Formats: sequence, structure tokens, C-alpha cells
Amino acid sequence: MGVPMSRRLESLPVEECLRLLESRSVGRVAFIDDGVPQVLPVNYRFHEGTVVFRTDYGALLDAVHLSATAFEVDAIDADYRTGWSVVVHGKAEEVWRPEELARLRDLPLRPWAPGHRDHYVRILPNAITGRRIS
Amino acid sequence: MGVPMSRRLESLPVEECLRLLESRSVGRVAFIDDGVPQVLPVNYRFHEGTVVFRTDYGALLDAVHLSATAFEVDAIDADYRTGWSVVVHGKAEEVWRPEELARLRDLPLRPWAPGHRDHYVRILPNAITGRRIS
Repeated sequence: MGVPMSRRLESLPVEECLRLLESRSVGRVAFIDDGVPQVLPVNYRFHEGTVVFRTDYGALLDAVHLSATAFEVDAIDADYRTGWSVVVHGKAEEVWRPEELARLRDLPLRPWAPGHRDHYVRILPNAITGRRIS
Repeated sequence: MGVPMSRRLESLPVEECLRLLESRSVGRVAFIDDGVPQVLPVNYRFHEGTVVFRTDYGALLDAVHLSATAFEVDAIDADYRTGWSVVVHGKAEEVWRPEELARLRDLPLRPWAPGHRDHYVRILPNAITGRRIS
């Protein structure tokens, strides 16, 4: 037992953010629906520099297609107040080209919620930021 | 080893959502900043029917004060694709009345990120929804 270590907030270099995005499979996508912020958990894969998730035809797809989104992944220890968080900002779009869809269907990407969810959405990052508390 | 159980998406009654909100201490707050969705993890407490978190004076406080927010808490098993998620929608506001601040300062609420973060924000729910995959 020693003197408590001081906690430090550190910005993560983009390479580390990419590595962390590749290491996880559950994130939260935030978007604007009818002027109101929304946030939902999704299973995702970070694939060829984009965040890919699956959804049904419906409100989420309508709200995110061609819209600005923020996508967040983290691993946080509430008790020790340590951990990291990575946020991707970018426009989402439905993937519809057959050859691209065929590649995405090969990913080990199963939706969290039940249902077919056979629409694939990808977020094309225009900014990736990360921070770690150590 | 049997037949795989089918997975089911279940809406949670509000009492169960409240219990789950009380059971956790890390969530993600989504808001709109300059027209763009944002999402950030925060340590929080669910206190007297509101979501309370701490922040510094700065961009987050400016963006959320008197604005619509969505706040999400979850516990998800990516491999088994089970778990739950609760989302609170409501307006955020900074708490400034001394007698209310005094009560909030008694909460076991420590911010995740370092820094003083002595501004208290609360989200007043106007809708609480939850779902569980079982």
C-alpha cells in the first residue's frame, strides 16, 4: 500500500484508436432522429477503416443513412476510474453494392438484437479520437 | 447440449428500467453539438428520478445545458448476444441551487475523467425505454 497514484487523462494516437476499435465488437451509435439525439448499442466490426453494423429496415436505418453519426467504444472500470474510450465521427450510409455486400456478409458480424437485420450500414470516419485514464 | 434456444427481444417495463439504471454507474450521454451528434462515457448516479453526472466548465456543459439528451446504459454479452440496454431521453440542466448541490455532493459520484469537474448536470427523463435479449 503506497501513496495513491495520480490519475492522468491521455489522448490516444490514431493508430492506438484503430487497434482498440478492432479489438471490440459492441459499441454505441449516436445519431439525430427528428431533431432529438438517440443512442443505441450495436454489434459491429471495424472493417477496411469503417465501422460496420447490421440493422433492419426501419427507424434506425432511416435516421442514420447519409447522416452524421458518432460511434463510441469503451472499456471502463467504474471503481478504479480507469479505462479508455474511442469516438468515431462520420457519415453513415447503407451498403448496397452487391460486391461490397458479399464481402460484408463474410464478416463475423451478428447483430445483437434478434431479427434478420440484413441491412448493412457503415460509418466512414472523418475523425477518430480516443482517450485513456491511467 | 441441446437445440439452440431462440433469442427474444423483450421490452422492459419502466420499473425494471429504473432498477437497472440504479444498478450501474457508467453510461454514455449523447447530445447534439453544433448540429453534430456526440457521445461520451460518464460516471453517473440515478438519483431522485434523474441521471446525475459531473463535468467541467466547457464544451460538454455548454452543449448539454438546457438541451435534449439521450443517455444509455447497458450490459451486453457480445458472444452470447444477450443482455439489456436502457435509454433515457430528456433535457439536461446544470444544477446550481446551493441546497440541491449540497445534496448531490453527498452522492458517491466521482467523475470518470480526471479534473475537478465540479459542475453537476442532471437529465430529467421524459421517456425511459429498455429492452432485453434473452
